[in-house]
Amino acid sequence: MMPINVLFSARTPRWSEYEAPLRAAFADAGLDVDLRPAAGTTRVADAPPPHADEEVDYIVCAPNGSVTDFGPFTRTKAVLNLWAGVEAIAPNKTLTQPLARMVDPGLTEGMVEWVTGHVLRHHLWLDPQITGQTGAWRPVVPPLARDRPVTILGMGELGSACAEALTSLRFPVTGWSRRAKTQEGVRCLWGDDGLAAALESAQIVVLLLPLTAQTESLIDARALARLPRGAVLLNPGRGGLIDDDALLAALETGQIDHATLDVFRTEPLPPEHPYWAHPKVTVTPHVASATRAGSASRAVAENIRRGESGAPFLNLVDRVAGY
Amino acid sequence: MMPINVLFSARTPRWSEYEAPLRAAFADAGLDVDLRPAAGTTRVADAPPPHADEEVDYIVCAPNGSVTDFGPFTRTKAVLNLWAGVEAIAPNKTLTQPLARMVDPGLTEGMVEWVTGHVLRHHLWLDPQITGQTGAWRPVVPPLARDRPVTILGMGELGSACAEALTSLRFPVTGWSRRAKTQEGVRCLWGDDGLAAALESAQIVVLLLPLTAQTESLIDARALARLPRGAVLLNPGRGGLIDDDALLAALETGQIDHATLDVFRTEPLPPEHPYWAHPKVTVTPHVASATRAGSASRAVAENIRRGESGAPFLNLVDRVAGY
Repeated sequence: MMPINVLFSARTPRWSEYEAPLRAAFADAGLDVDLRPAAGTTRVADAPPPHADEEVDYIVCAPNGSVTDFGPFTRTKAVLNLWAGVEAIAPNKTLTQPLARMVDPGLTEGMVEWVTGHVLRHHLWLDPQITGQTGAWRPVVPPLARDRPVTILGMGELGSACAEALTSLRFPVTGWSRRAKTQEGVRCLWGDDGLAAALESAQIVVLLLPLTAQTESLIDARALARLPRGAVLLNPGRGGLIDDDALLAALETGQIDHATLDVFRTEPLPPEHPYWAHPKVTVTPHVASATRAGSASRAVAENIRRGESGAPFLNLVDRVAGY
Repeated sequence: MMPINVLFSARTPRWSEYEAPLRAAFADAGLDVDLRPAAGTTRVADAPPPHADEEVDYIVCAPNGSVTDFGPFTRTKAVLNLWAGVEAIAPNKTLTQPLARMVDPGLTEGMVEWVTGHVLRHHLWLDPQITGQTGAWRPVVPPLARDRPVTILGMGELGSACAEALTSLRFPVTGWSRRAKTQEGVRCLWGDDGLAAALESAQIVVLLLPLTAQTESLIDARALARLPRGAVLLNPGRGGLIDDDALLAALETGQIDHATLDVFRTEPLPPEHPYWAHPKVTVTPHVASATRAGSASRAVAENIRRGESGAPFLNLVDRVAGY
């Protein structure tokens, strides 16, 4: 039997980081794979030359990979994205093959930890304890989690997992999504009316929406004004969800007490950006949603195994909705 | 029927904070209670005079309350402590009545939130992000919780609840206790041999032991040396569990990377104490284990209801073990 030809097209994460985990995952899945990096990928000296385009069975890629014209890949059964977000690749008109988003259990776990950690940090008012040791003993006991409503905008894989973790800590969680959803223990809302109610009750808001034409700048002056005064905003989703000028204005007036941001319209966030020095903003450098090579490689291998056995691919992108 | 005479003896928490919640809890439990503050308790102007000592059925007390000689309370069926820790009251030789420790669901929830919040804070390396916004984009992705072993010393109500929360976030949790215990998903160890193993594997250690002759200064130079280099210590238990000089020395050498301390041998922690200004120490002013008046009052009412109906009291202190 011929090996399965897999092309790796990504600058970040890198070939050197993924080669060994991918080979191990293919072997574990019993797949005979000929894995090669694309031309233009950061390559190591002894990497094999790329496959001919028309002989590639699967493309494992990041949106910043060197393959931008998917037309010549006539035999390719699926394009398997290494990132959860597909807004940089989904609009590519040459990409007519099935496109799968990365659902990496490691990524989900990391996101749950980042969100739970920052929710608890703000809930417990940790910042003054971490930044200021004045020698003054001023015990102020925070409320219990059960009295701290949290709203998650976006109830996909990541939002749903975060809602579950926060619910088990007894935070009252509201989850909002574009389409109707239900989740045990979570107040689920949807649509425009639902959004207003989801914002009005939130002391802490977590943004985990995909970036689409509908969600771009969803968090604008009007949305920020709907939050209770002094709310905290966490954005581990996508930078484009927020109207940055509106957020800076809301921080200025005290409408928003603090924003902890992991993603930005331009990354790296430029050194002169006002977020860096802002006393009410915490910048974390896109670390909330890192794909982990080991578990991501196993997810890639599973989708190739499914493709080869005729089973439907997991986590296919809806090309009309854009996610 | 005669009302049940209950004496309230506490300076902190205060009569003014507890009177209404206690009365509400007694009413909800269907108990006809004559509740009065002890002489010497911070009283409000219209408080009723105390009961005669020999007519008191139950004493609700904090160790800092004005009642220190329990001998005259010949009819008292139980002394119900408002604090989880009983080391300040258990050794009182005049206290021969059954003594119950406070197990407040609000206290447990608050402790779980404090412990989970600080474990995640150290796990995610939040401090540099909170204290320093340098404008430098240096993404360093922390390991997953599944690769961050946490050890909890003390597997009573509080330790067990914290272990459950951390386990559900996928931290590998080791729980150590004096007596053998088991808990699903937790590696349970006990005894002296168990202690060594529990310390050796811990990147983060949480102290939730009672303070007894056996646990006083348990965390001494020898115990600290058993931890992996760079471990983090969280103490929301009792200040006396730690040999402070040994901890300061271990922070100096880097054996311990950080200590977050909520309890101290002297409270308030004196302004000149080296912990305050230490860059590797976070002081939180005894806020992890605050009893919440509402839920604590319901726990008191439930124990009185049990005493009146002949059922065994909940959470009785073992006067030999001291907790």
